[in-house]
Amino acid sequence: MAQRGEDFRTIWLKPGDPAIVQIIDQRLLPHEYRVHDLCTWQDGLVAITDMYVRGAPLIGATAAWSLYLAALSGADSAAAVHEAAEALLKSRPTAVNLRWAVDRILRLVGQAAPGAALADLILADAQAICDEDIEISRGIGMHGVSLLDAISKKKSGGSVNILTHCNAGSLATINWGTATAPIYFAQQQGIDVHVWVDETRPRNQGSQLTAWELAANNVPHTLIVDNAGGHLMQHGEVDIVITGTDRTTRCGDVANKIGTYLKALAAYDNGVPFYVALPSTTIDWNSCDGLAEIPIEQRDVAEVSDVYGLSDGRPAFVRTTAASTPISNYAFDVTPARLVTGLITERGICEASETGLLGLFPEMAAS
Amino acid sequence: MAQRGEDFRTIWLKPGDPAIVQIIDQRLLPHEYRVHDLCTWQDGLVAITDMYVRGAPLIGATAAWSLYLAALSGADSAAAVHEAAEALLKSRPTAVNLRWAVDRILRLVGQAAPGAALADLILADAQAICDEDIEISRGIGMHGVSLLDAISKKKSGGSVNILTHCNAGSLATINWGTATAPIYFAQQQGIDVHVWVDETRPRNQGSQLTAWELAANNVPHTLIVDNAGGHLMQHGEVDIVITGTDRTTRCGDVANKIGTYLKALAAYDNGVPFYVALPSTTIDWNSCDGLAEIPIEQRDVAEVSDVYGLSDGRPAFVRTTAASTPISNYAFDVTPARLVTGLITERGICEASETGLLGLFPEMAAS
Repeated sequence: MAQRGEDFRTIWLKPGDPAIVQIIDQRLLPHEYRVHDLCTWQDGLVAITDMYVRGAPLIGATAAWSLYLAALSGADSAAAVHEAAEALLKSRPTAVNLRWAVDRILRLVGQAAPGAALADLILADAQAICDEDIEISRGIGMHGVSLLDAISKKKSGGSVNILTHCNAGSLATINWGTATAPIYFAQQQGIDVHVWVDETRPRNQGSQLTAWELAANNVPHTLIVDNAGGHLMQHGEVDIVITGTDRTTRCGDVANKIGTYLKALAAYDNGVPFYVALPSTTIDWNSCDGLAEIPIEQRDVAEVSDVYGLSDGRPAFVRTTAASTPISNYAFDVTPARLVTGLITERGICEASETGLLGLFPEMAAS
Repeated sequence: MAQRGEDFRTIWLKPGDPAIVQIIDQRLLPHEYRVHDLCTWQDGLVAITDMYVRGAPLIGATAAWSLYLAALSGADSAAAVHEAAEALLKSRPTAVNLRWAVDRILRLVGQAAPGAALADLILADAQAICDEDIEISRGIGMHGVSLLDAISKKKSGGSVNILTHCNAGSLATINWGTATAPIYFAQQQGIDVHVWVDETRPRNQGSQLTAWELAANNVPHTLIVDNAGGHLMQHGEVDIVITGTDRTTRCGDVANKIGTYLKALAAYDNGVPFYVALPSTTIDWNSCDGLAEIPIEQRDVAEVSDVYGLSDGRPAFVRTTAASTPISNYAFDVTPARLVTGLITERGICEASETGLLGLFPEMAAS
């Protein structure tokens, strides 16, 4: 098992070679832990598009590091950065941090003194983005753990059963995750937790990533198919749902991995609190009605038909469907704010509403 | 592609050898159509337990045919039938037709004249169960098609988008299916239909069985992951949901494949009608509160971890999870009657309630 805990990072500069950025090829987990080199910004683009990396915060960070690689690449650093930025912005339409990170770097480039070493500037900012992301995850963990602590006390120390969907864990951020940060903090504080891990078809981020990192950190967990959460909630087996988000509107609508909406409905129907953990970088302050305004990415149908795993100990794909079966593959859905009990941010927990969010982020009131 | 339409059957006596019953090994679909011989009642038990056959009506029929094989098997036919019945009843706890079919055959055996040829009696009744099942499916189709016709007219002939979960199709019955019967009838009547097929993890009955039989019958369809139905309903892409059921209480609570409840919640939240198609043999007149009273089968966790398909053109399983990942595998959930728009039975469509069901089955009022 790979590095874990405090030392864990999902993206870093290669030791001894500052022209190479390294990531974990998350497509191969849990069966293989392989570090992958990004040597060009195009490598970064492929890593995002083909989901070597995924998760809104890590996508944003990878875009920033890709712009660093772009700045290293040609005679005209600024032109290369702009070319890379344009391509990166098109790569994953739903995740709002991608735009946030790219815009931040472009602003930096725009404000740079003539003749400045752009690569050095961008490198420092990409590192800052990662450091800030870790602090954000810590903030989410610190605030979110209060919810788990309260449930634990209500259950007289009995295990707190948390259901999560997809991977909003360390692997989706730089470390600690968003939805998982309160869980890791609870574990550190000695609160007894158990996580129901949604498989998360079609890409199985739950069974392949969340289960992997919970195991690496010794957090008790049980994998279930995406269909099972409602049944568990009906029978009192879930105390709280915590998911991440790829984009949250200023009114509290939450775009997240396809199927999140169904879990929110079940939580609402069974009186189970449904929380969404998010860095404020995933808030889209320019939109309110998530259903109408958030573009939902459709991805390659092979993600549905072809399933990755081990066959006789070797990595393989199996095609589960007939070759001729028509398939559609929406990657995200929108959970309306009315189904969200609260948002866990790095600044605190608030109602999923414009009032709630502006209470924590008053500086956005004028925007 | 195999037989289809009027001639299709899922279980039959082997031509030329009345000591062998034949089924389709549904575990191999859609990649291979293989007929499997049941030579003993134990073969029938394995076929049910290991899901060569599945679907409440077909499970019931297979149990009846297995009792025929038991009657052929020993010196003491009646003893063999009773031994087989006991084992069969334990094989799948949720499907109520299993008990219904076994009880029906045991009653027949109990009433047989001394010295009667039990095997002949049971053979005739197993065939009758199959013939009756086909008539039941026809009845469901005839009544259910009115719902699709009304939607089609409301859409001025536009395609009626039906979402279904699992396989409540021809393959789950003897022919025509339950949830699919209205769809096949609509197609015969020239009504334009399109079916959203839920993949139905963990066993993929949607992608592997429903998609197969809809393709065989030229019904337009699109496969989606189980997570996607809510998103489609939010965006008006689903006109009606029709599922089958393994057991329906007299008060209208519906036990069906795990995940059905989540689709019912989404349908309710979006004003999409949610219908359940059922032969009256799946009504459990002795229970009312499905959540409290229906036992929910837990199955082998390998169903979740190991996915079947083709790898390089050959049948293979891949393990998607780490070997050490803890897994839970509930096979069914219960959808409360309040979320069910109506029940489509062989006698007509009714409200999902005791009043509704007794209106169609008044003879059960005294039971």
